[in-house]
Amino acid sequence: MIDLRSDTVTNPTTKMREAMYNAVVGDDVYGDDPTVNELEEYAAKLVGKEAALFVPSGTFGNQVSLLTHCNRGDEVILGDDCHIVQHEVGSSSVIAGVQLRTLTSNKGILDVEEIKSKIREDDLHYPKTGLICVENAHSNGRVIPIEVLKEIYSVAKNHDIPIHLDGARLFNAAAALDVEAKEITGYCDSVMFCLSKGLCAPVGSIVAGTKTFIDKARKNRKLMGGGLRQSGILAAAGLVALKDMTKRLHIDHENAKNLAAKLNDLDNIQVFLEDTHINMVFFKITKDIDYDDIISYYNKKDIKVNGPENGIMRFVTNNDVSEKDVDYIVECTNEYLNK
Amino acid sequence: MIDLRSDTVTNPTTKMREAMYNAVVGDDVYGDDPTVNELEEYAAKLVGKEAALFVPSGTFGNQVSLLTHCNRGDEVILGDDCHIVQHEVGSSSVIAGVQLRTLTSNKGILDVEEIKSKIREDDLHYPKTGLICVENAHSNGRVIPIEVLKEIYSVAKNHDIPIHLDGARLFNAAAALDVEAKEITGYCDSVMFCLSKGLCAPVGSIVAGTKTFIDKARKNRKLMGGGLRQSGILAAAGLVALKDMTKRLHIDHENAKNLAAKLNDLDNIQVFLEDTHINMVFFKITKDIDYDDIISYYNKKDIKVNGPENGIMRFVTNNDVSEKDVDYIVECTNEYLNK
Amino acid sequence: MIDLRSDTVTNPTTKMREAMYNAVVGDDVYGDDPTVNELEEYAAKLVGKEAALFVPSGTFGNQVSLLTHCNRGDEVILGDDCHIVQHEVGSSSVIAGVQLRTLTSNKGILDVEEIKSKIREDDLHYPKTGLICVENAHSNGRVIPIEVLKEIYSVAKNHDIPIHLDGARLFNAAAALDVEAKEITGYCDSVMFCLSKGLCAPVGSIVAGTKTFIDKARKNRKLMGGGLRQSGILAAAGLVALKDMTKRLHIDHENAKNLAAKLNDLDNIQVFLEDTHINMVFFKITKDIDYDDIISYYNKKDIKVNGPENGIMRFVTNNDVSEKDVDYIVECTNEYLNK
Amino acid sequence: MIDLRSDTVTNPTTKMREAMYNAVVGDDVYGDDPTVNELEEYAAKLVGKEAALFVPSGTFGNQVSLLTHCNRGDEVILGDDCHIVQHEVGSSSVIAGVQLRTLTSNKGILDVEEIKSKIREDDLHYPKTGLICVENAHSNGRVIPIEVLKEIYSVAKNHDIPIHLDGARLFNAAAALDVEAKEITGYCDSVMFCLSKGLCAPVGSIVAGTKTFIDKARKNRKLMGGGLRQSGILAAAGLVALKDMTKRLHIDHENAKNLAAKLNDLDNIQVFLEDTHINMVFFKITKDIDYDDIISYYNKKDIKVNGPENGIMRFVTNNDVSEKDVDYIVECTNEYLNK
Repeated sequence: MIDLRSDTVTNPTTKMREAMYNAVVGDDVYGDDPTVNELEEYAAKLVGKEAALFVPSGTFGNQVSLLTHCNRGDEVILGDDCHIVQHEVGSSSVIAGVQLRTLTSNKGILDVEEIKSKIREDDLHYPKTGLICVENAHSNGRVIPIEVLKEIYSVAKNHDIPIHLDGARLFNAAAALDVEAKEITGYCDSVMFCLSKGLCAPVGSIVAGTKTFIDKARKNRKLMGGGLRQSGILAAAGLVALKDMTKRLHIDHENAKNLAAKLNDLDNIQVFLEDTHINMVFFKITKDIDYDDIISYYNKKDIKVNGPENGIMRFVTNNDVSEKDVDYIVECTNEYLNK
Repeated sequence: MIDLRSDTVTNPTTKMREAMYNAVVGDDVYGDDPTVNELEEYAAKLVGKEAALFVPSGTFGNQVSLLTHCNRGDEVILGDDCHIVQHEVGSSSVIAGVQLRTLTSNKGILDVEEIKSKIREDDLHYPKTGLICVENAHSNGRVIPIEVLKEIYSVAKNHDIPIHLDGARLFNAAAALDVEAKEITGYCDSVMFCLSKGLCAPVGSIVAGTKTFIDKARKNRKLMGGGLRQSGILAAAGLVALKDMTKRLHIDHENAKNLAAKLNDLDNIQVFLEDTHINMVFFKITKDIDYDDIISYYNKKDIKVNGPENGIMRFVTNNDVSEKDVDYIVECTNEYLNK
Repeated sequence: MIDLRSDTVTNPTTKMREAMYNAVVGDDVYGDDPTVNELEEYAAKLVGKEAALFVPSGTFGNQVSLLTHCNRGDEVILGDDCHIVQHEVGSSSVIAGVQLRTLTSNKGILDVEEIKSKIREDDLHYPKTGLICVENAHSNGRVIPIEVLKEIYSVAKNHDIPIHLDGARLFNAAAALDVEAKEITGYCDSVMFCLSKGLCAPVGSIVAGTKTFIDKARKNRKLMGGGLRQSGILAAAGLVALKDMTKRLHIDHENAKNLAAKLNDLDNIQVFLEDTHINMVFFKITKDIDYDDIISYYNKKDIKVNGPENGIMRFVTNNDVSEKDVDYIVECTNEYLNK
Repeated sequence: MIDLRSDTVTNPTTKMREAMYNAVVGDDVYGDDPTVNELEEYAAKLVGKEAALFVPSGTFGNQVSLLTHCNRGDEVILGDDCHIVQHEVGSSSVIAGVQLRTLTSNKGILDVEEIKSKIREDDLHYPKTGLICVENAHSNGRVIPIEVLKEIYSVAKNHDIPIHLDGARLFNAAAALDVEAKEITGYCDSVMFCLSKGLCAPVGSIVAGTKTFIDKARKNRKLMGGGLRQSGILAAAGLVALKDMTKRLHIDHENAKNLAAKLNDLDNIQVFLEDTHINMVFFKITKDIDYDDIISYYNKKDIKVNGPENGIMRFVTNNDVSEKDVDYIVECTNEYLNK
């Protein structure tokens, strides 16, 4: 099967399986797991932060960061189309207990003047602005330029407000911008990035920040039920993800650009070419079709896809999707739409 | 002093003081206060609901409504400039524990299509849409037309989502629209309206809705510390507010329109005339001035005003501001700006 | 009617009604109400604290204190039979979001060694102990001796943990101990006491503490919907409560002791004489009776009483219950039980 | 090293490592991981429940159960020495937002009459009793008899209150009682049990209950950040844990009993023999010693132990502690204490 639903579907590589098989482990709640410790150190260095923490998922990493940065009742400024608002089940109102102050994002980019206007003054009627969140790469397929991050960071620092970066696909952003990850994370106080998704680890994400922040987050991780035992098994795969897999993301991006261009050449399809910064291809089918039918058609052709969201289809390339697969996908799509 | 800061500054009338002096009271936690009971019945009828509850404040009434309608983690759709978002200290993330899903309001009016697009489907990643909030009159000085309320209500009913109306100034809206209050509240499941503000009661607001809703809200009121004892004292003033004071709000509106027109005739002032639906006048001073200086100038002239919010000044007329006062305010303003 | 259900049923006195009628008021959210300001200053001084805050109720005062002292997730040590645990609708888990760590109280008295053993060390698995709560007078009718308060305070200070005193009936405790209220409140960091109950004000309680604490509590009061407008009306009655009514509580206590002794002399009744420290009489009817029947019998005799809690009846004396009433109550009780 | 600190320190077995290496996996957020699905089905059957859910940890499993059973503000009845109260960082006040109503447990056993007395009636002042929690085996080393569970269950059913069983060491309890796990779980509505600890899986626990409960818990798992991707890796080890390792727990128990008896035979040690129901040995050193010194002595002898809690030491046997190790531990202890 060619699975285009997401890059979360990626299988751990053989090297990962071997690393997990051979992992030296200990009880990480006691701080005794050497592989987790190695991963946390390696990850912190990679993003230029003092310390890092292994967490079970990206949502977990974002939410433990909100809980650690904010007091309950604080306000968080972020884009209305970001993952924390859209896809984390309203968690921020349950666990961190914060008020989301959403801005209309322009393809993932927050307007700096609008951020400024939303920062709360000290007033009896106002919550405190406790955090600004930025997402890069954005789950809309786009990468936020360093210049934008820099500007937002500077506003945040002027107001003494921390910035959290949802970098679920941080290394995709770095690859797309052709910079080291730490050039991006230089403009945030904490960052979450996933070892799964394009990097293929089976389970796990990293939160990184100052030592003080991570110490506090470690206790909050326990509170949230994320204190694991011999998690060195997962960390072993995570180390392969960070050391090896970060280097091959440009291939997924090329495949995506290739797929985008070829699909766009077909009749009855309109690809949002300007949104193909990383490994995601968004497109509209301009002809009236039955989406259930095309999904089951793809399935019969051994291609797994999701249905449209607001009329827009998304195909995601990943380590299990080859250049040859791209041509096959285009061929099948053409056959269905234009036979 | 002429106090233009808000209509919250209104003094209780002599009739209210007499009613409070003579009020027959009991312990309302036991349900024994006849004056509170009378107020709650009168208020429910006035807005066409089954039952009503006396609460200490408008913020209390909105927040107890959120807590009663929603489960923690639910999402609430509302305008980004409404009171619940702007001026309630982030309470909804602390007490009700809900996620605010704000829409860009067009002068207080929410776009029905945008509401529809924000209602969540049933999905593992999504919170439930638990409530839609509408504010009328809006604290931006405008009144939402019945037609808009109707349309939003119809969308809400189609999706089986309740609507809460923040009617802090419900009777101002009714006066401006020249309808009975219950024509407005026909398009919501619960409503909060204030007995203070333009209606001059010293303390208190009402929440109204179905009997089931109010029973649940009554327990939540206790949880939030709003179970009072001989609150019939306050209810006595509230009854005067509802019976008498609702009928004179049009005078405040006329004074506001008058003030708006006359200020706008001055040099160096630009009044947002189209925002003077009720008792609020918003304007910009188009000449460079020191706001601290103008505020203390007004004070010396026995006029109390607030400083500008985002460069915009707001004067609010109320029961303690007469037609003659309007002329005096204009005169003083002219003297300061154009002497 | 002689109402023995609680001292919460007390009617405001004529002097209170006059004070309310004549009260000079302003908008207290703006800090403009001179009567509220006077009450807050007077109350702070009375209990030897830097500052005080008027709040709508005792539950409100306790809960705003928990919210202000603690971070969400902190642990609060308190007795398992205290009002916060028993009668505040679980509010502390909703608003302050704290974990209650209850100790078995010995008639309201917490064992100091047990408190010590429950204070949490710094450990990944433990919440922080954020507060210790003491109740005096206790709602079980007893007064906690100064010596006990002193000892608990000393433990708390050694561990740098604040103490909150639920002093809903603080002045009853002071009267029973024959000390000034501030001798009791010297052993706490914050105190809540009611102006209603035995003191007869219709509505309202006070929270007192350091200026920093009260500033923070003032904002939390707004968040909880307790920011009122012309609350000077209520504060006027509160001033009478504090200045006059605190001096007459010993009468209620004498009436209660008198009632206790006389009821205990009757057949078929066993009074818990050792629990009559203040204005409450607890007793068991030792003969098999139908409680609904005795309640309606009392009602016919113009006496209002509550049904038993765990088989124990409670009669509460107050400003509206005279020495003569006591004899009448005993007479009626005797007639019912021993006719 | 012989690690006696806990059974959480157990290493995954070779069979587990092989199972993980070969695991067929998929994206479990999509429900696509066949190994997770197999584990959840197997686990549900094993404890006689309709459905089961893989979660990252025991704390996670307990807390997601609280969140799923209760509404915020509900009250939970449980023992004051149980894991949820003692060792979960106050999580229940942050995530589920419930009020803990603790009973003094008699060596882990809750008194049925006391439970009854704590169940709340319907009253304006009371939270709802939303859940009763039982722990078996208890982390104090004891197993709760079936008869007790049955009695509590019957009370709960009479009041229509669900029961959650914290069965972190459920299979230890089953082994000690010599019954099948489902005889124990027959007396609860939901159960959490760990695949780690004595069962040696590196990471993970199971929550089981009705299908409706598990569906809701699955969404709450996502909210809490426990939606994992290719968690079949961990589930593969979990299947080995349930199929093989449950059968060998009696060996740990025998080793513990053996260790308890032999330590008790030494001078200067008093073992709480009646608490050795499972794999835990609790003892007091009756001679004055420096605990830091004995811990580092053990370390030099390649034995890892924790320091005392309230003066009591705990040694835990597990899959990595052999019969021979037991003798060596006794020998070293004797040498230190009685040389």
